Amino acid sequence: MPGITGRTRLLGIVGDPIAQVGSPQACNPRIAAAGADAVLLPFHVPEAEFEVAMAGLMRLGNLDGLLVTIPFKQRVLDLADTVRPVAALVGAANALRREADGRWTADMFDGVGLLRALAGLGVSPEGASVLLLGAGGAGRAIGVSLARAGAARIGIHDLDRARGEALAARVREAAPGCAGAAAEPVARGYDIVINATPVGMRPGDGLAAPLGPLAGVAAVIDIVPKPPMTPLLAAAAEAGCRIAGGQVMIEGQAEAVLEFFGLPPGRG
Amino acid sequence: MPGITGRTRLLGIVGDPIAQVGSPQACNPRIAAAGADAVLLPFHVPEAEFEVAMAGLMRLGNLDGLLVTIPFKQRVLDLADTVRPVAALVGAANALRREADGRWTADMFDGVGLLRALAGLGVSPEGASVLLLGAGGAGRAIGVSLARAGAARIGIHDLDRARGEALAARVREAAPGCAGAAAEPVARGYDIVINATPVGMRPGDGLAAPLGPLAGVAAVIDIVPKPPMTPLLAAAAEAGCRIAGGQVMIEGQAEAVLEFFGLPPGRG
Repeated sequence: MPGITGRTRLLGIVGDPIAQVGSPQACNPRIAAAGADAVLLPFHVPEAEFEVAMAGLMRLGNLDGLLVTIPFKQRVLDLADTVRPVAALVGAANALRREADGRWTADMFDGVGLLRALAGLGVSPEGASVLLLGAGGAGRAIGVSLARAGAARIGIHDLDRARGEALAARVREAAPGCAGAAAEPVARGYDIVINATPVGMRPGDGLAAPLGPLAGVAAVIDIVPKPPMTPLLAAAAEAGCRIAGGQVMIEGQAEAVLEFFGLPPGRG
Repeated sequence: MPGITGRTRLLGIVGDPIAQVGSPQACNPRIAAAGADAVLLPFHVPEAEFEVAMAGLMRLGNLDGLLVTIPFKQRVLDLADTVRPVAALVGAANALRREADGRWTADMFDGVGLLRALAGLGVSPEGASVLLLGAGGAGRAIGVSLARAGAARIGIHDLDRARGEALAARVREAAPGCAGAAAEPVARGYDIVINATPVGMRPGDGLAAPLGPLAGVAAVIDIVPKPPMTPLLAAAAEAGCRIAGGQVMIEGQAEAVLEFFGLPPGRG
């Protein structure tokens, strides 16, 4: 990356924890390849400090945009002056940018990342039966995107059953042809299994839910970017499923996110 | 510099404006040479947003320290839990670090930078007669440091005459053998002339004061880091003086500042 100077524009990713994020690695080489004098940084915003830390970051005159990860994808909507349609439908956002007039716009790209990760595995969402673990910000984006991409059925498991059912209703709204329903976390019979919870990120984590045998599932995707081989992905690989981790999703959405931030597409 | 990841620790420099700062260029190669996973960034804190922006930056869990430049070197003292002796004497600080217990310590390194820049020019402060323009945060650090380094006389010019006289008193306190006094901004008879005001930073700026002929002055130093050749330095070079700009001062204090931030000394 070119050297940082006083003229370098700042982008960031906010989350708690932050060490596991993959966006700096995904975005900075693309920014450099585009010849832009900008850098994307990790900002560790402790959950209890969200309001104060975000207010401070959003006042910086040389900060143009923020990516938003766990656990702030829903709270960040309160900070936006404008919420774009996908983010509004999902009820969460993972990107926030400053407009020329100083106002902030929120949008949601997690669905884009998931669809690109699936495409990379050669597995089509069309007509697929999907088990989705987690109905938080990322889970909602993924559920809505899969429904719109033609998934036939999406079973949703969330420890908060009401949250899972709310997402199921939203999935049916997003694509009336898609059977969205709260479901038990049992993998058998699904084509695609997706972990959209943070479980797997911390040492000692197991699976987000006892999924039973994974054999027969075509693709298993874990949104956790680090470690690259989560317990879920390891079990899926052993069962012969195609797998992709969170870093693949992050890479998949990096181009779309940088375009949202107003950076020119890479020359590389 | 090594690639930025979610584990990279952040340092910054806050100022308004910010484009002219030289600390990222001075510090990041040293950080990289030391093998530390950290990066120093420019944070543009608009003057009217100082409290909110600083409160936000200081809550970030992965930000370990901040350099502070114009116009915040005095206000930053209010944000520190501990003010080290030099900063307390000067009444201003240009560095703030988070301690292990979460408290913040302020210190002042501008004097270190000035003395190293003088040494680089081969001009000794001992017994020297110095004209100092500007009695703000940087000017105070420089005045006190020169007095302690053995300057015989320091004439101080500030548009705010009371501020100039206050620094003169502080200089005499810091080194009773040094004649500190408010002075007219006329270079004749001085060995060293120092601009410690921001004048020279903006396009169209002239000199901070009409200095008269510079011939006979041994060394002229301008704390403005950008442009590298300010109107003052250009005039001084033409008059045959040795010159150094703000980037030289920044380079001069970079090692001391990074050590304050707890980074290992460079291996390079």
